[in-house]
Amino acid sequence: MENRFWQLNNRPEGQDVSGSLSLESEPLPEPGEGEVLVKAAYLSMDAGTRMWMTAREDSYQPPLELGTKMVGLVLGHVAASRNAVFKEGDLVRGFGQWAEHSLMDPELAGLMPVDADVADIRQHFGVLGFNGWTALWGIRETAEVKAGDNVLVSAAAGATGILACQVARILGAQVYGLAGGPDKCKWLEEELGITRAIDYKNDDVAAELAKVEGGINAYFDNVGGPLLDAVLPNMALYGRIALCGLLAQYQGDGRAPGPAHFDQVLMKRLRVEGFFSPDFADQGPQLTVQLKEWLDAGLIDTPFDVTEGIENVLTAYAKLFTGGNIGKVLVKL
Amino acid sequence: MENRFWQLNNRPEGQDVSGSLSLESEPLPEPGEGEVLVKAAYLSMDAGTRMWMTAREDSYQPPLELGTKMVGLVLGHVAASRNAVFKEGDLVRGFGQWAEHSLMDPELAGLMPVDADVADIRQHFGVLGFNGWTALWGIRETAEVKAGDNVLVSAAAGATGILACQVARILGAQVYGLAGGPDKCKWLEEELGITRAIDYKNDDVAAELAKVEGGINAYFDNVGGPLLDAVLPNMALYGRIALCGLLAQYQGDGRAPGPAHFDQVLMKRLRVEGFFSPDFADQGPQLTVQLKEWLDAGLIDTPFDVTEGIENVLTAYAKLFTGGNIGKVLVKL
Repeated sequence: MENRFWQLNNRPEGQDVSGSLSLESEPLPEPGEGEVLVKAAYLSMDAGTRMWMTAREDSYQPPLELGTKMVGLVLGHVAASRNAVFKEGDLVRGFGQWAEHSLMDPELAGLMPVDADVADIRQHFGVLGFNGWTALWGIRETAEVKAGDNVLVSAAAGATGILACQVARILGAQVYGLAGGPDKCKWLEEELGITRAIDYKNDDVAAELAKVEGGINAYFDNVGGPLLDAVLPNMALYGRIALCGLLAQYQGDGRAPGPAHFDQVLMKRLRVEGFFSPDFADQGPQLTVQLKEWLDAGLIDTPFDVTEGIENVLTAYAKLFTGGNIGKVLVKL
Repeated sequence: MENRFWQLNNRPEGQDVSGSLSLESEPLPEPGEGEVLVKAAYLSMDAGTRMWMTAREDSYQPPLELGTKMVGLVLGHVAASRNAVFKEGDLVRGFGQWAEHSLMDPELAGLMPVDADVADIRQHFGVLGFNGWTALWGIRETAEVKAGDNVLVSAAAGATGILACQVARILGAQVYGLAGGPDKCKWLEEELGITRAIDYKNDDVAAELAKVEGGINAYFDNVGGPLLDAVLPNMALYGRIALCGLLAQYQGDGRAPGPAHFDQVLMKRLRVEGFFSPDFADQGPQLTVQLKEWLDAGLIDTPFDVTEGIENVLTAYAKLFTGGNIGKVLVKL
């Protein structure tokens, strides 16, 4: 039996990574002592993984070695186990590879069993996944959103942004979203029901934000770059910026110019804070309890953008950078 | 009797403000109902006042009107009072003017009586003044400095920086300072006794900071600009940056490029927070009690750079921007 996987061959530059990865095949690997082989049901497509492809020393972690399998989050069933905690057939989630089967050291992979009884197991990559944790942590803990706040979310139609919008609304905030194109904005206002969506591709973002009475109390930022610059002068005094991603800067060497309105951090006495889900992974179970409660109550949900087949991974992945998706991008195997 | 004062005539551009202010004279003003006339003993020279000269809408406060007296902190004695709280001869401190006598509405001026029995009344512009409050608040509250931290202070030989270095050391930190030129660095290491001073005019700041084992846990920043950019990649994980001034950006329109290494805020999960002494003015008395205790115990002190005469205000003021001073710049009247 063979196992198909994507291999990283060179460091991509710019948006298109298709010249840097190739679909390869190997005999199905067998777990060593303590290891687990997971048959993927879904692969999670996450923009942050773009950094792992690039040789940067000052990122979260060292870049992936060339000639190895591309790494990513996997939801699937244990196909073979030589680990006492995990047995064949368990539904699990962890850091595996862009592959049909992933060999994992459960500790290194952060492998955990997940509830197989949810109505839609994809929610383990949605409301109940890292995007959900990130949305809840960033909005409630980092940005300290309170009832009545004006909350702005960038990449608002993306996997984390949609959830951040909903968490902010549940906490009683007015929710503003930044998204690219009239379709996404229409969806955010009419389907998700946020207060106002601003189309950064067509609207004058700074001018639109200037109309928000009282200014922006909390900005949940996935993007950085020029949008952050448009937001800074429109923050309220003592505003909080929860920095969860820098999508605009993941490509190339990341040395985009910094925010020209950085001085507003001083002038408005803002607090800008970076956060990263592995840092609060120990709080994950409690976050999941809260999110599951909201999910069951119909207060929060996420749409999925699903591509089928291991051979189509790069098509799915590209959507993260071209903005071709609403909600969570998954590959179904 | 006449009162000499400095008047703001136009908006300065760049470092030299001498073409924008003129020394004028008027008959000694008399206090109206509720007002106080203060005869200045010392004028405090503060870089932040540079912003008041320039027409910027997004600063702490609106710019000063042209044709009016330049505003600044004054330490002096009440010369005449029509306010029940203040009586003739009281030693007071508040926002007055660059003038021999300042007419103040005590509430608007934040006028407060200060202890006339200290060994050196100049300490009300030193350890016991806004610079002391700012140093203590920024180091202990904003940057949350703890024993064992590596703490970096920019403008370390300046009025606030010297005090920030000393507060950090009192709290048990290793103290690193950035200052311009070998004389200041020598003074910081030999006289103030900090762990290491880095000369940003001659050393490779980023390379020197890279040698700090464990990275910088807390950066007390007065300066912003290229130095902040050199610091960002050398911050420790979860580091804190207390932003207390942006000296590098006060001139012109302040639209200096933002920090190119802004992405490190995310990568290192840093917290960057602006703070501003009027925001914690209500805590001032408690801060003063702590600072006075350290002053009396000989743990903290500040050198003064004193220029004499109202006619020499601009010479003293220029030192803030050319880096020609160690410690607090005062004008003695």
